[in-house]
Amino acid sequence: MMSFKNKFDLVKRNTTEIIGEDNLVLLLKEKKNPVVYWGTATTGKPHIGYFFPMLKIADLLRAGFKVKILLADLHAALDNVEWSIVDKRYDYYKKAIPEMVKAIGINPKNLEFIKGSEMQLKPDYMYDVLKMSSYVSVRDSNKAAAEVVKMGDNPKLSGLIYPLMQAVDEEYLRVDCQLGGTDQRKIMVLARENLPKIGYDRRIEIMHPLIPGLIGKKMSASDDNSKIDLTDDEETVKRKINKAECIEGDPNNGLMSFLKYVIMVIKFDNDKTFKIQRAKKYGGNIEYKNYEDIEKDFVEKKLHPMDLKIALAREISDLLSKIDVESLNKLAEKAYRNI
Amino acid sequence: MMSFKNKFDLVKRNTTEIIGEDNLVLLLKEKKNPVVYWGTATTGKPHIGYFFPMLKIADLLRAGFKVKILLADLHAALDNVEWSIVDKRYDYYKKAIPEMVKAIGINPKNLEFIKGSEMQLKPDYMYDVLKMSSYVSVRDSNKAAAEVVKMGDNPKLSGLIYPLMQAVDEEYLRVDCQLGGTDQRKIMVLARENLPKIGYDRRIEIMHPLIPGLIGKKMSASDDNSKIDLTDDEETVKRKINKAECIEGDPNNGLMSFLKYVIMVIKFDNDKTFKIQRAKKYGGNIEYKNYEDIEKDFVEKKLHPMDLKIALAREISDLLSKIDVESLNKLAEKAYRNI
Repeated sequence: MMSFKNKFDLVKRNTTEIIGEDNLVLLLKEKKNPVVYWGTATTGKPHIGYFFPMLKIADLLRAGFKVKILLADLHAALDNVEWSIVDKRYDYYKKAIPEMVKAIGINPKNLEFIKGSEMQLKPDYMYDVLKMSSYVSVRDSNKAAAEVVKMGDNPKLSGLIYPLMQAVDEEYLRVDCQLGGTDQRKIMVLARENLPKIGYDRRIEIMHPLIPGLIGKKMSASDDNSKIDLTDDEETVKRKINKAECIEGDPNNGLMSFLKYVIMVIKFDNDKTFKIQRAKKYGGNIEYKNYEDIEKDFVEKKLHPMDLKIALAREISDLLSKIDVESLNKLAEKAYRNI
Repeated sequence: MMSFKNKFDLVKRNTTEIIGEDNLVLLLKEKKNPVVYWGTATTGKPHIGYFFPMLKIADLLRAGFKVKILLADLHAALDNVEWSIVDKRYDYYKKAIPEMVKAIGINPKNLEFIKGSEMQLKPDYMYDVLKMSSYVSVRDSNKAAAEVVKMGDNPKLSGLIYPLMQAVDEEYLRVDCQLGGTDQRKIMVLARENLPKIGYDRRIEIMHPLIPGLIGKKMSASDDNSKIDLTDDEETVKRKINKAECIEGDPNNGLMSFLKYVIMVIKFDNDKTFKIQRAKKYGGNIEYKNYEDIEKDFVEKKLHPMDLKIALAREISDLLSKIDVESLNKLAEKAYRNI
């Protein structure tokens, strides 16, 4: 039985912010199996950045949480995925997310998967969305959606309904907490402000950082150059990593973030090391037990970007080798045929 | 069997505009019993201005239409009626509308009444509302709602969902046409533009003029001085009519409109006359068969506002005497207790 302190640290590890932290303390002390959900709109192809929330899910499972994963098909349609293709996108995510989960050593059977439309079209749910819509201003809904939904110059009404449905999801999923990236913050705050107005409890909101892209600020599902796909083969991984931004001595880039939040978390949890192989004249082989040491060497220019890239490409390929790429590629033919 | 010409004239009588008139011609020629709906959000107390759409409904019934009446409880909540009181408002309308219908000589059994929430919370319906929301811009929805929904300085999202639900209503009520006041025009146009985008036919939109208030531009359910209530007694009717705007020689006021669109339609259809009783020295008694003659005399100052008011107050009291005021007052205690 894990101590409160250990549970709390595990929940908090690698998070940027927890709204309702006081309630989290009570929750961990009082409830044996609190319930948390992580949701993803079934839009672009999930990339390796998604491993990070998967690892947070692993933390939460170990801390005793029951974890629900919402595959939000309707939210995808509200965020500009063609209605005719939404179900194919859902099929892709329905395969891809459990594959990622398995790759980091979790049995997907320990998670509960929920299809958004199966929960969200029920009369009570929609009644509550309409009810909430009478308390939320157009302005506030717009602000909440702006970081998550592609709004464009002439935003569609769907983008404003999106945050309200995410808020009501917290109630209908019967959860204590929501886990999400920092880009979800305004939606989470909207949920906390408005759930009580329609008679429900506000939930604890756990936020994790967003992993920057290989090129550019955010690893984006819609920009192929910024990300490594789950279905990328070894050569593609090498090529993309090779092209990725990584200036000697400067750790502020997507590769280092991925190393920190994904690879080194897996290494640490499995008591393994990150190995750099290099000729003796470049310093010889070296093993790292934690990210901090890597960053230190990198900043001090004792670890060259090229050596880092080679080692990281190998780690990513190892991780992806556990994914059923063939099945995903088949599903992708229908889900992403126009992309 | 009524001729096409007679049917068409009857449908068109006292309307301001019909969008899709070509289709109306085809409809009347090809379908024995076309279907039309008139909807009302169950907000403020229905006033005597509501007799006008009731008379249009009578026209449509005589022209062979099947008429559905939507008592839109959810729309009322989306338009600022407290969620906790919406059902009581619905109960009031559910009694008041059939009472009005009976008062003008229609058997309510010839109409189909539908409660909005019983139709609108079904999964397919809400799926279509969400689908439409991905095609309609915030801007367009806002424009469509502006004349119908009380938006205020910081409009709520509910007001923007309102027009989309009204559009989707046309499909789920399985109607060929919608009947509504000219204030509904932008919502009707939005429906015609967007129903085809989600795979449905655009409907024919039949618009009637809005009857001005006794004081002010519009007979408003929320302004007690502007309107005569269904439950007003004879003394109250007299007092309100007496106070109403009515300048000698100028027929542009709410009293003349009510005379034109309600009283004289009933008189004409029942082959009766509008009687003015006055002393011989003021011109003596006179009977009118149609509105045009009244207006002519009024403009030529042969008919004094005071004589008109006395006669009109009597006609309105006669009409209201057919209403079950006692039952309505009981329902009003719960539905309008805070007003």
